[in-house]
Amino acid sequence: MKERILSEAERQFWKYGVRSVTMEDIARQLGISKKTIYQHFTDKEDILYQVLQERINEDHLEMDCMANEAHNPIEELLLVLDMMRKKQQQVSPNLLIDIKRHYPQAFALFRQHMDQHIMKSILENIQRGISQGWYRKDINATILARMRVEQIELAFNNDFFPATQYTMFDIQHELIHHFVRGMLTEEGFRFYNQLVNTRNHESKEYQPDSVGLPTHATE
Amino acid sequence: MKERILSEAERQFWKYGVRSVTMEDIARQLGISKKTIYQHFTDKEDILYQVLQERINEDHLEMDCMANEAHNPIEELLLVLDMMRKKQQQVSPNLLIDIKRHYPQAFALFRQHMDQHIMKSILENIQRGISQGWYRKDINATILARMRVEQIELAFNNDFFPATQYTMFDIQHELIHHFVRGMLTEEGFRFYNQLVNTRNHESKEYQPDSVGLPTHATE
Repeated sequence: MKERILSEAERQFWKYGVRSVTMEDIARQLGISKKTIYQHFTDKEDILYQVLQERINEDHLEMDCMANEAHNPIEELLLVLDMMRKKQQQVSPNLLIDIKRHYPQAFALFRQHMDQHIMKSILENIQRGISQGWYRKDINATILARMRVEQIELAFNNDFFPATQYTMFDIQHELIHHFVRGMLTEEGFRFYNQLVNTRNHESKEYQPDSVGLPTHATE
Repeated sequence: MKERILSEAERQFWKYGVRSVTMEDIARQLGISKKTIYQHFTDKEDILYQVLQERINEDHLEMDCMANEAHNPIEELLLVLDMMRKKQQQVSPNLLIDIKRHYPQAFALFRQHMDQHIMKSILENIQRGISQGWYRKDINATILARMRVEQIELAFNNDFFPATQYTMFDIQHELIHHFVRGMLTEEGFRFYNQLVNTRNHESKEYQPDSVGLPTHATE
């Protein structure tokens, strides 16, 4: 039952934001009583916290798989974008703003995830990119990784990017492609262009195996 | 007298942040009494507000001149960086955080400046860059301009970029160069590389006139 409650709560939070979803809404959709929910959770923030915790654990795993699956750091970032496209299509623009303003413990969990796991993952991506010759040697990996981490949160900001004008994916797409391009060497650029062309020609999901690799890539 | 108070307050705010500077500190340095300051200003936030207002007016003028002086949009962004180097060397890492947390009216003035004048200036830069062929046609000017505006504020964030590790200029340098590179076409890249090499060879201040222009630049 606990898993069903978490799963339904996640669906509603992602779709409508946290504030506008009540315990009653979750209970009604599952055909259970509010009392049943309170047997498993102390309050809505407790549910939110556990939903986030699960989602973060899944993200850790998926990002590790992606780093493993990708042939090089450029491809890895574009695979992250694919993952975002799948997951964020349905995200309410209110979700992160709600959490930031009204659920401090859950927001702290999100920030910790960003500051630790996401920061580390981006930093390693940049360092690998530099050492393999895809990204320029004269960039400061720490400053750019921090900038990228903050961009992810920025994309959720409905004041800056009104949901009536852009989807979350439009913004992440624009920011990730700009982020990658700003780091590339000439060799990196050739590979990036090739990768983007291949992706544009594939109508469906992108398959890493279908892309030729430059000869010096030894991963 | 009012101008002298504003000028001394600006010097101390920029150097030490706003909170740690008292009316007494400003008066003492000018060899006047606090009473004299209160003849011109209601309180410290009033001084801060007027200092910011003056600085913003100067910035408007300088940025307009720069857009006029630069041969193309790439050069314009690097001239903005030069301006930042001159002005921000001495900025306390506490300045903007102080203002954001404790002086809401002054912070609103700063945000208004960012959201209107700076946003407009960056957006025009990107649009000119695209139409002249220096920046790619497939970028979304509004999303990238907003991202860049938020980067300027981000660079002031001492939590993310500890002042013990980086100067404000290191961060702005890294972010602006990455911002420009992420937008460039191949032709833009050739010009950018040429410009950066020229700037690196010049020991002192950069002179726009010393740079050769690609033949198609018609500005």
